[in-house]
Amino acid sequence: MDTAARQLQAEVNRLQHELQTLKVQYLNDDDELITISEYILKRLEQLNVTSIFGVPGDFNMPFLDFIEDHPTIEWIGNCNELNAAYAADGYARVKEHSIGVVVTTFGVGELSAINGIAGAFSEMVPVLHIVGVPSTTQLKNKPMLHHTLGNGKFDVYTKAAEQVTIAQAMLMNKTQAATEIDRLLTECIVHARPVYLTLPMDLTTEKIPAKRLKVELSRTPPPNDPDVESYVLDEIMELVDDAKQDIIVLVDACAIRHDMRQEVNDLLVTTQFPVYATPMGKTAVSEEHERYGGIYIGSITHPSIKERVENANLILSIGGLKSDFNTGMFTYRIPATHTIELHSDHTLVRHAKFPGIGMKSLLPKLTERLSKYQEGASRIPVPHYKLDVPKESDDKISHAYFWPRVGKFFRKQDVIVAETGTSNFGMMDVPMPEKSVFVSQILYGSIGWATASTLGAALAARDKCLGRTILFTGDGSMELTVQEISTMTHHNLTPILFVLNNKGYNIERHLHGLNRKYNDIVDWKWTSLLTTLGDLEGKMSKSYTVRSKSELNKLLDDEEFASAQKIQLVEVIMDKYDTPRALQAAADLTAKMAAGHL
Amino acid sequence: MDTAARQLQAEVNRLQHELQTLKVQYLNDDDELITISEYILKRLEQLNVTSIFGVPGDFNMPFLDFIEDHPTIEWIGNCNELNAAYAADGYARVKEHSIGVVVTTFGVGELSAINGIAGAFSEMVPVLHIVGVPSTTQLKNKPMLHHTLGNGKFDVYTKAAEQVTIAQAMLMNKTQAATEIDRLLTECIVHARPVYLTLPMDLTTEKIPAKRLKVELSRTPPPNDPDVESYVLDEIMELVDDAKQDIIVLVDACAIRHDMRQEVNDLLVTTQFPVYATPMGKTAVSEEHERYGGIYIGSITHPSIKERVENANLILSIGGLKSDFNTGMFTYRIPATHTIELHSDHTLVRHAKFPGIGMKSLLPKLTERLSKYQEGASRIPVPHYKLDVPKESDDKISHAYFWPRVGKFFRKQDVIVAETGTSNFGMMDVPMPEKSVFVSQILYGSIGWATASTLGAALAARDKCLGRTILFTGDGSMELTVQEISTMTHHNLTPILFVLNNKGYNIERHLHGLNRKYNDIVDWKWTSLLTTLGDLEGKMSKSYTVRSKSELNKLLDDEEFASAQKIQLVEVIMDKYDTPRALQAAADLTAKMAAGHL
Repeated sequence: MDTAARQLQAEVNRLQHELQTLKVQYLNDDDELITISEYILKRLEQLNVTSIFGVPGDFNMPFLDFIEDHPTIEWIGNCNELNAAYAADGYARVKEHSIGVVVTTFGVGELSAINGIAGAFSEMVPVLHIVGVPSTTQLKNKPMLHHTLGNGKFDVYTKAAEQVTIAQAMLMNKTQAATEIDRLLTECIVHARPVYLTLPMDLTTEKIPAKRLKVELSRTPPPNDPDVESYVLDEIMELVDDAKQDIIVLVDACAIRHDMRQEVNDLLVTTQFPVYATPMGKTAVSEEHERYGGIYIGSITHPSIKERVENANLILSIGGLKSDFNTGMFTYRIPATHTIELHSDHTLVRHAKFPGIGMKSLLPKLTERLSKYQEGASRIPVPHYKLDVPKESDDKISHAYFWPRVGKFFRKQDVIVAETGTSNFGMMDVPMPEKSVFVSQILYGSIGWATASTLGAALAARDKCLGRTILFTGDGSMELTVQEISTMTHHNLTPILFVLNNKGYNIERHLHGLNRKYNDIVDWKWTSLLTTLGDLEGKMSKSYTVRSKSELNKLLDDEEFASAQKIQLVEVIMDKYDTPRALQAAADLTAKMAAGHL
Repeated sequence: MDTAARQLQAEVNRLQHELQTLKVQYLNDDDELITISEYILKRLEQLNVTSIFGVPGDFNMPFLDFIEDHPTIEWIGNCNELNAAYAADGYARVKEHSIGVVVTTFGVGELSAINGIAGAFSEMVPVLHIVGVPSTTQLKNKPMLHHTLGNGKFDVYTKAAEQVTIAQAMLMNKTQAATEIDRLLTECIVHARPVYLTLPMDLTTEKIPAKRLKVELSRTPPPNDPDVESYVLDEIMELVDDAKQDIIVLVDACAIRHDMRQEVNDLLVTTQFPVYATPMGKTAVSEEHERYGGIYIGSITHPSIKERVENANLILSIGGLKSDFNTGMFTYRIPATHTIELHSDHTLVRHAKFPGIGMKSLLPKLTERLSKYQEGASRIPVPHYKLDVPKESDDKISHAYFWPRVGKFFRKQDVIVAETGTSNFGMMDVPMPEKSVFVSQILYGSIGWATASTLGAALAARDKCLGRTILFTGDGSMELTVQEISTMTHHNLTPILFVLNNKGYNIERHLHGLNRKYNDIVDWKWTSLLTTLGDLEGKMSKSYTVRSKSELNKLLDDEEFASAQKIQLVEVIMDKYDTPRALQAAADLTAKMAAGHL
C-alpha cells in the first residue's frame, strides 16, 4: 500500500470507529458490566470461535478460568505453544469467516509460538494471539520475575511480536480495553493477518460496560473511491474488448484469504471464462467446475496447460501472490500488458496501479459488465483437468503413482492438509473433489506446521460438518510437532494421517545434499505413535504400514478405513530418493537460479 | 551497567580489537585462504566446541556441508529448532569454557528457536545462533522467497533476534567477515550471553585470510580500574573488620555463569568462611565442602539455615541474581548495610555501587587480604547440611520422600538436570555429591527446556568424561519437547530420564486452578516412548514404572540400572496434588503477593 492509500485507510478506520462509538452511545442506556475476559470471549463468540488453543502458564491462568467456564468455547490444551499457534492457523483456514485464537504466557510461551504467528502473517490467516502477562503493577515496577530476561526489559517480547503481527494492543487499564480489543479484532478480520494482545493478570476480572458488544465488528474492507473504481472498470473493459473472447481467469491465494470464493464463482458462472489456479489458489474454485483447466505454476506447469494460460490474450488474475514456490521459481511467462490483477487493496491494469481499489467491491461490478461475453467465451474449449493413475511395472509406491492414487480416494467436502515440501508439491497436480478444502503453507513453508495445523483443521471441519480431515506429511516433518496427535485423540477427532517414510528430509535432499547425513532422520516406530501418545488402550486409533501399491490400494479401497471412524495413521514406505515431478522441477530451477542461469 | 561503564567497556573492546589486529599484522605474512565456513568452524574448534545442534533448511545446507565434513565437530540433527536451542544451552552449561552452537534456517527455523535463545540470554549461557539466510543478492533484491513474510521485509527476523541476543552480525560481504565473527564470539564468551549471526548462502564458500585465527579469542573481562579497585578493597576490608569474624558467603548464579568456581573455592579454603548457596548457585561450591551450610531461599529457607544467613554480621554475596523463584519470592531478609555484592561488571558495598569493578579480578585480591581471618572464621560452627529420607507410614511415593531418596542415588560427577517447576523446587533441598553438576532454568523457567537440554548436557558430559546424566521432569513438561529423546538414543547417549507422572502441570495447579481441567494433560504410555521414538528393536533402552516406595528403592538399588549403560526412562507415579515443600511455600507466597499482602 502506498502512502496515499495508507492515509485514506487510516481515515476510513477513524470514521468507522467514530460511527461505532456513536452507535453505542445511542443505544438504550444499559449499564450492564462484564469482565474484560468475558468481553473478549463475547467478541470471539460473535466471530464464531468455538475452540481456543494454547498452553497454561501462571500469567494466563486467570483468563483460562473464563475460557473453561464458557458454555460454547472450548479450551484445547496443546502440548506446546508452537503447535498451538499452528493449530489456530489451521482452524482459521478451514473455519472461514472466523479467526484462530491462541493463548500463551508471558515470554516463554509467546516466543515459543512466534514462528506460528509469523506463518499466519505470511500466509494471511486471521489469528489472535492473547498473551497472559504479569499484573499492571508488575509491568510498571518490573521486578525480576521468572519468564523475564532478568534485565528489567519487559517490552522485548512485544517488540518481537510487532515484527510479525499487523496490530498490537497492550492493555494497561480498563478504560480503553474495549476499544482496543475491538480495534485489534477489526484489523485481524479485515486484513486477514495475526494480531497481538497482552492481557495483564489483574485486568482479567476488571469490569467494563458490555454495551459496545451490541454493535458487531465490521469485516467490510475500506470502500473503493467510486470515481476511481468506475475509471478502472472502464479501463478493464477496454482490454477485455481487445482480447477477442480469449480471456482466462487465474485464481490465487488471496481469493481464498480475502473471502472471494463467492464473487469468483459468480464471475465464472456469468462469463464462462476458462479458469486456472495457482498452487496457493487450489480449491478456491471447484476443481470439478466444467471450465476449470488445472494448475498454473510457471515453467513447472503441464505443457498443454502452460500453453493455454500463457497464450491467452488477457489474463484476469484474482488475488495473486507471486512467491517462489507458487510461481515455479518466478517462471511466469505472462506479460504485464496482457494482465489485470485484482487484489484486496489495489488493482493493476497492465502497468497501471490503482491503490485503494480492492476486489471485494470491484469484482461484482466487473462480473455484471462482463456478462455479455458469456456466449463467446463459452465457445473456447477447456479440456477438463484430470490426472490418471499411471500403470507402472513394479509394485513399489512411487510418487508418480501415489499422488494420483490418493486423489481417487478423496471425497466431497474432505479437508486435505499437505505439509510444506514433498507433500505440497505432490498434491499440486492432484485434482480435488467439489467442496473439498485444501490447506497448505506454500509461501511461509515451515515444516512441522501441517501436523499441528491438522488439529485445528479437524476441529473446524467438525464444526462445519465437513468430511474427513486428511493429512499428508513426511517422517522428517512430523517429528517437529508429533505430540499434537495426542491432542487429536483426546478430543475424539478422527483424521487420517499419511506419513511418507522416506528416511529423512526429502525436499531438502533434492535442493541440496542428496546424500548428506544431515538430511537423514532417526526412524521411528510410526505405527506405535497413536497408542504411545494417548490411545493407551488401543481402542480409539488404528495404524497401518503400506509397502507396495497393492497394500496401498487394498487399504484405500477398504470401506472401514475410508469411513474414518477412528484416528488412523498410515506409514507409507517410499524410496529415499524418489520425489514428485513438480518438486524435482522446482529443485532443478533452484539449482539453475543459484548458478546464475535464470 | 551505567553510561560511564558502558563507555569504558566500549573503549576496552576497541583497544583489545586494535591490539588483536596489530598482532595479526605482525605475524609472518602468510597468505593462506580458507572459506568463511571453515573460519567459523576453526574458531569454534578453538572454543572447544565438539557438537553443533540444529535442523537443516535450504538456506543453511551449504554451511552444514562444512560441519558434516569437519573432523572433530559433530552435527547433531535435532527434531525441531526449539529443541536444538535448548540442547545448545544445556551443552554450554555443562561443557564450560566453551559455547553452545545452534544452526537454523531463515525465518521459520530461527523464529522456532528464539525462545531457547531468550532463555540463554536470561540465564546467561553463551550460545551462538547461526542462521543460514538467502544469498547476498537475494537479501538486496528481496524477491518473494519462501520463509519470508511476503511483504519484502527481510529484516524482521533480525529485529526479533536483537531483543534476545547481546550482539548480532549480519554478514553481507567477505571483507568484514572475520572481524565480525570474532567480535561476536568475543561478546558471547566475555558476557556469557547468546549472539546472532546470519550467514548468506553464497558467503559460505567465499575465501578469506586465515591468519587472524592464530590469535585466539580473549575471554578476559574488561580490567578493573586499579585505583577504584583498591579503594573498593579497602572499603570491603573495613566492613569485614567490623563484622567480628561473623561473615558468610552466599554463592549465586553468576558465580557459575562467569566462571568463578575456582576463585570462590580459593576464597573458601583460605578464609574458612561458612558458605551457603541460592537455588541458582547450587553446586557452584561443592555441597560436600565442610563449611557448606545449605540453600538460602529467603523465607522458604529451612529455619535453622535462614537464621544463620540472615543474622550474620556480614554477607559476601558472589554473583547474586535476585529473581522471584531464586529468592523465595523476594523474601530476603538481609539488610543492604550488611551486604557486599560481587558481580561480573560491578561491585556493591552496602549502598555504594562501583561500576566497572568486576569480581573476576577483584575476588583473588580480596581472598589474599582475607587470609588472616581464617582462624577466627573457622571457629564458627557450620552444621553440615544434609537431608534425611523421611520415614512415612504408607508406600506411596510422596515428594517429601522422593527427592531425598533420589539424592542418595547421586554419585560424584553426575550431571543432574531439573525441569523448571516441580522438579526444580524438589531438587532445591537435595544435597549433591562433590563434582556433580546441577543445571536448571530457574529464572527464565520455560517448561520443556529440561528434556532437550539434557541432550546437550549428556553430550558435554561425555566430552568431559563426567558421570551419568540424570533428568527430572514432569509428564506435562516432557510433552513439549519429547521428540529429543530420539536424538539421545541415536547418538548412543545413556541418560536416565525420571518422568513424574502426576497427571498434569503440577506447579501450575499449585499456583492457580488446582482443579481446573486446563491443568490436566493427555496421559501417554511413557514406558513405550523410547522404543517408539528410535529404539526400534528395544535393545538400546529400558523403561520402568515405579508406583511405590518399595519399587522405587528396588530400582535405585539395582546396580545395572544405576550403571546407566542404556538410555532409561523411569515413570514415577505420584499423587496429582502432592508437591515439594519449597514449591508449596512459593505458591503460598505468590498468592499472598497477588492479594497484596506482601
